[in-house]
Formats: sequence, C-alpha cells, structure tokens
Amino acid sequence: MSILLKSTENYGNVYIEGGTIAEVGCAAYDADTIIDASNKALVPGFVNMHTHAAMTLFRGYADDLPLQTWLQDHIWPLEAKLTEEDVYWGTKLACLEMIRSGTTAFNDMYWHALASARAVEDMGVRAAISNVFIDVAGESDDGSDEAVRKKNRKLTGQLNKDYSDRIIPALGPHAIYTVSEESLRWIAEFAREQSGDMLIHIHVSETEQEVNDCIKRTGMRPVEYLDHIGFLGPNVVAAHCVWLDDREIALLARHDVKVAHNPVSNMKLAVGTTMRYPELRAAGVNISLGTDGCASNNNLDMLETAKFASLAQKAAANAPTVLTADESFAMVTRNGADALRIGSGAGSISEGSAADLLLINLLLPEMTPFHNLNSNLIYSAHGSCVDTTICDGVVLMHNRVVPGETEILRRASEVTYDLVNRE
Amino acid sequence: MSILLKSTENYGNVYIEGGTIAEVGCAAYDADTIIDASNKALVPGFVNMHTHAAMTLFRGYADDLPLQTWLQDHIWPLEAKLTEEDVYWGTKLACLEMIRSGTTAFNDMYWHALASARAVEDMGVRAAISNVFIDVAGESDDGSDEAVRKKNRKLTGQLNKDYSDRIIPALGPHAIYTVSEESLRWIAEFAREQSGDMLIHIHVSETEQEVNDCIKRTGMRPVEYLDHIGFLGPNVVAAHCVWLDDREIALLARHDVKVAHNPVSNMKLAVGTTMRYPELRAAGVNISLGTDGCASNNNLDMLETAKFASLAQKAAANAPTVLTADESFAMVTRNGADALRIGSGAGSISEGSAADLLLINLLLPEMTPFHNLNSNLIYSAHGSCVDTTICDGVVLMHNRVVPGETEILRRASEVTYDLVNRE
Repeated sequence: MSILLKSTENYGNVYIEGGTIAEVGCAAYDADTIIDASNKALVPGFVNMHTHAAMTLFRGYADDLPLQTWLQDHIWPLEAKLTEEDVYWGTKLACLEMIRSGTTAFNDMYWHALASARAVEDMGVRAAISNVFIDVAGESDDGSDEAVRKKNRKLTGQLNKDYSDRIIPALGPHAIYTVSEESLRWIAEFAREQSGDMLIHIHVSETEQEVNDCIKRTGMRPVEYLDHIGFLGPNVVAAHCVWLDDREIALLARHDVKVAHNPVSNMKLAVGTTMRYPELRAAGVNISLGTDGCASNNNLDMLETAKFASLAQKAAANAPTVLTADESFAMVTRNGADALRIGSGAGSISEGSAADLLLINLLLPEMTPFHNLNSNLIYSAHGSCVDTTICDGVVLMHNRVVPGETEILRRASEVTYDLVNRE
Repeated sequence: MSILLKSTENYGNVYIEGGTIAEVGCAAYDADTIIDASNKALVPGFVNMHTHAAMTLFRGYADDLPLQTWLQDHIWPLEAKLTEEDVYWGTKLACLEMIRSGTTAFNDMYWHALASARAVEDMGVRAAISNVFIDVAGESDDGSDEAVRKKNRKLTGQLNKDYSDRIIPALGPHAIYTVSEESLRWIAEFAREQSGDMLIHIHVSETEQEVNDCIKRTGMRPVEYLDHIGFLGPNVVAAHCVWLDDREIALLARHDVKVAHNPVSNMKLAVGTTMRYPELRAAGVNISLGTDGCASNNNLDMLETAKFASLAQKAAANAPTVLTADESFAMVTRNGADALRIGSGAGSISEGSAADLLLINLLLPEMTPFHNLNSNLIYSAHGSCVDTTICDGVVLMHNRVVPGETEILRRASEVTYDLVNRE
C-alpha cells in the first residue's frame, strides 16, 4: 500500500509506503492512493498521553460538582455497572472523536481493557492499552493481589499476541493510594522483565491530598516514594504531576520519567494549582499532553488542550512568553510519540518515521491569514481543521468523513441509555 | 419572509416571521423556507461582547511576546498602516468566522469603523460599532479634541442613518489612560443626549498598571474615577474589569454597568489575575463574554471562550462548582443580548424575541451522548457544532456553508499580505 500526498503546502509531495514516510519533497510518483493536498498543511498526528477513552459515555453526565460527590455519587456507580460492550462502544466513540480531531495515538487506562484494544484495532488508530490496576481498600476485582497479578500477566500476554503492532501493551497501576507498595514493586519488576521494558501508566500527584496522605503514610512525597521503591524509569508515564517540589522534579528528570500534563482536566476539577511546566522543562523532562477522560474535560481535542496548556502557563507565570506555540506543538506531537516509543523520528515529518499524519485544511477562517502554522493550530484552530487523518499508513478520515461514523454515534448513545437505566 | 424550523430536538417546530420568533412548538405551517431540524438543537445565537473584528488580519502575526514588545514593535506599526479596505476585509473575515461558530451579534471597537459597519451590513450579522476614540498623548488623528468629537458626532449620525437596524451605533473611548477626562465627560453626555442612551464601549482595568497609574494620577481606582466624573451608566459596556476591589464591584452594580469578560485574552496576555466573577455575580452585575481581538486570542469562538471562562474560574476559586455550564451559556447568549439591547426576550427561545438563532448538529462525537445540552456545548463542543446560523430572521449559514466564503478568505489573505509588505 502506497499513498502520495500531492502538493502539501509545507512539504510539497510526500510519499508513504506501508506504515512509513518513504520520501519527503519528492517527485509526483504513482501510488495506490493519490490525495490532493493543495491548500493543506502536513503535520504529524497528535498523541493524547492520558485518557480513559470509554469515559466518552459519561460526557456531560455530571458536571460542576464537588470532586467527591462527582466520583462517589455519579461516576463510580456507573463504572461499577460497565460491561465489555459498553467499553467497546465508548472507546469506538472516543476513537471517532480522536480521528476527527487529529489524534492518531493515545495512552489509555481503563476497565475491560481488551474491549478497548478491540475498538482501537477496529478503528485503525494506535494506543497504549492498560487495564486499571487497583488492589487497595478491597477494590480489586476479587480481593486477592495474586488474582489481579495473574489477570494482568494474562492481559498483557493477550495484548502482545492477539493484536497488531498498533496496540502497545501497558500496565495501569491507578495511583499510589489505590495500589499497595508490594504491587507497585511487582509491576515495576514485571514491566522490566518484558521485552522492551513495558510501559507503565500511573496517576501521580494530581491532588494536594494525595501528597499530604503520602507524607503522612510514608514520610515521603509521592515521587520520592516511587523512587524509593524502585518504581521510576523511562518506561513510566506519570499523568498529572501537578503537585511537585524541586526534589521531585529532579527525580523525574534523573529517571527519564515521561510526564503527561492534563491542563483542561486539572482546571475543570480544580486541583488547586498549575503544573510547574517551566521547572520541569528546565530539568529536561519529556512533557506531553493529555485530555484525561471525557467525564472531566469533556472532549478529546488535543488542539484545545494545547491552547489551555499554553495559556494556563502564561497566566500562572504572569508572562506571555511562557510555553510558546512551538513548544505546545512539540508536546502534542513528538514528545508524546517519543514517550509511546512509536519509533525513531515519530511525531515529525521525516523519512523513515511512522506515517501517522494529518492534512490540515488551510481554507478556513481560523487558519487565515497564514502568518504562522503552529500559532494558527495551537491558538486559533480546533480539531475540526483536520481534513485527513492517516495512521500507520492507512487513511482513516478524508474530507472529514470517517466510514461508519453514524453507526458509532447511534450505538454509543444506545449503550449509554442502557447503562444509566441499568439496575 | 418566513422560516419553519421543523422538528428541532428541544422545541419541536419553530416558526419565524420577519426578524422575530413567531411561534414555538407549533404545528407544521407552510413557510417560505422550511429547514429540517431533526437531530438538531435550537439555541440562541451567541453574542461576542468585546472584540476588534478586523484584527483577524493579525491572527498569528506575533505571539508569545512580552506585552509592550507585542504592541509597540508588532501591532501598532501595522495598525498605523491600516486602510478602510483592510478593515473591511478583516471584518468580513471575522464575520465569516463568527457565523461559522454561531455568533450572531458582537460589540466592536476599531479604526475605520464605517468599513466595519459596511462589512457587518454585507455579512448579515448584528453589531454595535464604535470607532476607537483616543485623544491623549497626541494619538488622536489630527491632534485636536474638537476634531475628534466632530468626527464621532458625524460617525454616529452616519451609523444611525445609513445602515439597517442590525448596526447599533456606539461610542468607543479606548480607556481612561488614552482619553482625557474632558473627553470622557463629553462622551458620557453625548451618549445620554442620543435617543435610547447610546452604548459606550470602553476598556476598564485590564492591567494592574492601569490601576496603579490611575491611583497615582487621580487618587482613585479606575471605576471610582469613572463614577466620580459621571461616566458610569447602564449604557456602558466595560471590557475586562480584571482588577477590581469590592467598592468598584458595588459601583458597577449600582450603575448597572455591563461587564464584558475576556478570559482567553486575559490568560494569553497574562494580565496577572482572574476576573472576580463570583463577587461580580453576587453583586448582580450583568457579565457577558468576549473574545477580544484575534491578535490576543487568536480566534472568535464563543464556545471556546465560555469553556475558558468556566474553567479559569473553577481553577481560581479552587472549586469545580463555580461558573457552571448553565451560567456560561447565559453569559454567551442572553446576558450579551441584554447588554446590546437586542430586544425583549433576545438571547432566549421565546415568542416575540429576535430571530438570532442556531441549529446545533447533535450527530457529532463531541455532542454524544446527549446527557446535557449546555454541558456538551460549553465543555465539549466548539463552534464547528453549529450547522445553521440565522440572524434577524435570515439564514446566513446552512449545512455549514456560508455563501461567498472562499472569496472572503482569498481577499483577506491578499490585503494582509499587502499590509505586512506595505512601506
């Protein structure tokens, strides 16, 4: 399978073969598929580094509530009733939204992870898939640590074996307050034993209470505690990292931990402060962006998230020069692609890198005039500027049409209706 | 001219006659135009309460810079070269973007205001049009206060006489630091003399420096100073109002001043704090939303602005319950419509009110599932969810097509290219 993107505004002709960019700025080869890319800019696909995809089903179900009311009275009771079928259609809805807004890869953590993997496989995008791992306070499926471990071993085996390379198996220990120290140590060790040092996706220091509780329990702050138990490494994606002190930032940098920042969710749930981006960046940490789940955002639009990230940092630093459009653009493209290890050069337009690509429609008011592409993308446009989405060398959307979208909207609405009315 | 919106999801059939909603939830009358509104929700058109429309031409021209560098080295030199033709096409580009994102009315302040009025007239939306009024520090056109006054008298006369009712004449004293006390008094008096107590559009307390300079100069804070010189009244739209103390909030409430909040611009330019929404609301002030100009936002999407408003307030108050989706929705619809005096019931779906209306496409992932319309609009969707835009009973966009849009994009790009290369 080959694709020729003909006459892109910024790279001329681009030739894709298999799942890879074969040539940039080339002559007009013949190809299996030829796409007229005039008046369109070519950019790497966006990478959403922290989400719970199937939570699209809860979009708008409960907003503007105190955190504990929201979780305990609304979200958790629904989650307790979720079936594999729900998760499958919720994740398909998420993938549809992502394809339409230019996200070609995401880092997921949710229940019924095999259903998520199946949805990702069917939709053609790329995702690191982890099942939520919880074993504290009797919240594990059957109460036994060993059973949860066995389940995770089996699951990651299945994710490796039964799916294409677009599915990246990962481990999803929920957080330090929901997973025992013993299990965290087991997960870190298990991940290292896997070929390629398996990705671990964990929530870290989202709220001040998590920090205070950790200090009370262990005498250490969360990142220090994770360092102390040998958990940290380049395979760890730490979502949130809102409440960090200088020592923790140094630890994240030293262990090359990947930080997934979720500015929209952090503001909507009012976690109390703004992530220390300038200090994390100065320390050389790989910082990427995530939307978080649709119950706390409520969308999956990475360009919106990038704008929130830039503007929240400018406001927090009281300086309009902080987190520029170019930095935000890198955060939603190559920083995420590097963290998910999509391959050398991924997240950039370069020969040999993964063909996870977008064509941006420049004939839109929000893209006009064309002084600066990254500025228009980050500060002006939303995901609806994406005309064509390509993942792994396959066209998933062209002219804003994703095959089968009406059916996905219908089925997702149906399972949601059933879920909220289920006894 | 009559329009039947057939089978809207939330109001059934809605009948529009002339510029007015004639009947809501009615039988399926015959009409000049019948629009199938199944799978669509009907909402009032959005009102953008503070912008400089033609600044679309500067979108992405200079970002991520310190405020003074941005203004003095980039924006002002370009503005000095602006022609009527530039402003006409810049405003048309703005109107196109607004129509596509559901804004049917806006409150503008800019140079060459008659060109803006002509663009608004041609595009079919509604706008309060004011010319920037500056007379301090030799920045008035010809150095003479009287000449500026004469020009404003003539301009408001023309705006009243030569245009349709969709053009609302207004006065645009830039700010207390760019307009002399004498001129501010003159403007307040002149506005009161006009039939209907003419609207005044002014920047108030956007930066801390403005407050400090005002105290140094007058011994009073800006709102106190404006009260002291008899400037405040229900016809005043005060943009920004970021830096207010309790006494100023009470003064704004007492004089029924309309406050136009610009959360995106405030964060992007890093004005240093968050507008005191909870206190202003508690005082009963009419608070609406604006995008500000595209040089400091960089778009005109009111749904994005509403999300920023809600989330910034939640973050500032450290409480996810602050500025709910319903409040944000009111701010972008009826609060703005009331402030612009579009008529009784404007900004709501009610018989007898102005037919400034939107059909929202519900068959989109960001609108699915349909737990809560306002939540999906404010927290999940962007302006691209608008399928049909109607202003003053005339369909300006249907199925996301605005007649003549390619020509507007082309001409706006051309005048921009010419402007930045002009000697």
